[in-house]
Amino acid sequence: MAESGIFPVMKIPVRVYYEDTDCGGVVYYANYLRYFERARTEYLRSLAGLHHEKDVIFVVRRAEAEYLGPCRYDDLLEVETVVAAVTGATVTFGHAIRKDGDDRELVRGRVTLACVGADGRPARMPAEVRAALNRARSR
Amino acid sequence: MAESGIFPVMKIPVRVYYEDTDCGGVVYYANYLRYFERARTEYLRSLAGLHHEKDVIFVVRRAEAEYLGPCRYDDLLEVETVVAAVTGATVTFGHAIRKDGDDRELVRGRVTLACVGADGRPARMPAEVRAALNRARSR
Amino acid sequence: MAESGIFPVMKIPVRVYYEDTDCGGVVYYANYLRYFERARTEYLRSLAGLHHEKDVIFVVRRAEAEYLGPCRYDDLLEVETVVAAVTGATVTFGHAIRKDGDDRELVRGRVTLACVGADGRPARMPAEVRAALNRARSR
Amino acid sequence: MAESGIFPVMKIPVRVYYEDTDCGGVVYYANYLRYFERARTEYLRSLAGLHHEKDVIFVVRRAEAEYLGPCRYDDLLEVETVVAAVTGATVTFGHAIRKDGDDRELVRGRVTLACVGADGRPARMPAEVRAALNRARSR
Repeated sequence: MAESGIFPVMKIPVRVYYEDTDCGGVVYYANYLRYFERARTEYLRSLAGLHHEKDVIFVVRRAEAEYLGPCRYDDLLEVETVVAAVTGATVTFGHAIRKDGDDRELVRGRVTLACVGADGRPARMPAEVRAALNRARSR
Repeated sequence: MAESGIFPVMKIPVRVYYEDTDCGGVVYYANYLRYFERARTEYLRSLAGLHHEKDVIFVVRRAEAEYLGPCRYDDLLEVETVVAAVTGATVTFGHAIRKDGDDRELVRGRVTLACVGADGRPARMPAEVRAALNRARSR
Repeated sequence: MAESGIFPVMKIPVRVYYEDTDCGGVVYYANYLRYFERARTEYLRSLAGLHHEKDVIFVVRRAEAEYLGPCRYDDLLEVETVVAAVTGATVTFGHAIRKDGDDRELVRGRVTLACVGADGRPARMPAEVRAALNRARSR
Repeated sequence: MAESGIFPVMKIPVRVYYEDTDCGGVVYYANYLRYFERARTEYLRSLAGLHHEKDVIFVVRRAEAEYLGPCRYDDLLEVETVVAAVTGATVTFGHAIRKDGDDRELVRGRVTLACVGADGRPARMPAEVRAALNRARSR
């Protein structure tokens, strides 16, 4: 998780705690978007130090999730991140959540981030950031 | 909000508190799904008492959100719910979030719920529930 | 709730949604602190417009909660706020949570806020703020 | 963290993500109680398998936190757990939060859990559980 470089796929472990669940006995549906973002943050941290690039601000433009099976209290999950698409100003990440040691996808998602300038207006991604994301995608 | 009946569109007010925001200064992207669910819950409560129908369990199968503009601390929002589609076992709600007194959509979403039995397996919706949702949709 | 003035006690309604509960079937213990803050925010909004006083920044220094009974999904709660103590730089709020129409306290709490300047360092409260809080306390 | 045994002090790492922060730029005050519980859960998991003892149900009776300094986005924190007190039916955990590699306490807390039976009523702790907690405390 901590190694710097270009990843086609990166996985982080996430333990399900009480805070994540609801009275239906499963993880609350909005909380998977938290897991996606934890995974995305670690992905960007690993990807050539993008995480620390202060001039690149990404904001979420779109998010979707499909709920295929339940995750429960105390489950140890694996949250996967891939680069699904890159344009001049946006990057779309694909996410999948599985139980540790089980191939079945329980949640699947896509999140599109847009690059904005310090003024909050849409901006083109710096060339080296776009290049790094494209290299990750093409693997 | 409290009137019982069939609604083509229902709106609930939501105040943005500190808990809802993140250090980017805006509402955290996953928290809009919480707002959607509060609105959906009130919708179902109003719709012919569906909320209290113990034999009907809905689980979320799919959720998506588009983030068109930021919501901030202390904003008073209006969260809108409509019935977008109904099948034998699912209902899809459409949601829109605006600032009170402003027509611009800031967040737009769709959430699909599936009916399940007490055993958690997919089940057909009771006829009267499906009929009520269809009447709401067709208005 | 919306009336401006000096309140010895103010109550706001809070509906319990799925997002608030955990797989134990009750409201997650940290989430009562969210309810306290919603109530406190409305209290400060009502108290002579303190809410809009940009030069007064309060930060939480201490919080405590006693859990006397469970709150559950769909409960309609009343969250009460009083001013419990005022010093030159701090104000302590007392909170109590009950079910609508039931006198029994289910959660009881105290939260101490400290006044800080724009630099984040402790600062004395403006005299008129302190006076307003003291009037509220003495009622 | 994963080793089974008796710990006088246990520490777990917690990374601060966007979901944890608020528009004040720091971790939202209620979220430290989430961190406390993650640490407590891992503590109980390590302590002679208490975590898996299905007959022992603990509920939170009291929680308090002192906020001594801010934690911010991307901070890597250490959340410490100790057994502070044990009675026939309750255990009180002490928690401290520091930045990784920095001795200064930023948040300090105490959380009291009470043992309840399957009916939710107060119950004495099983002797072996109480013994294990007492051994941890006396180190």
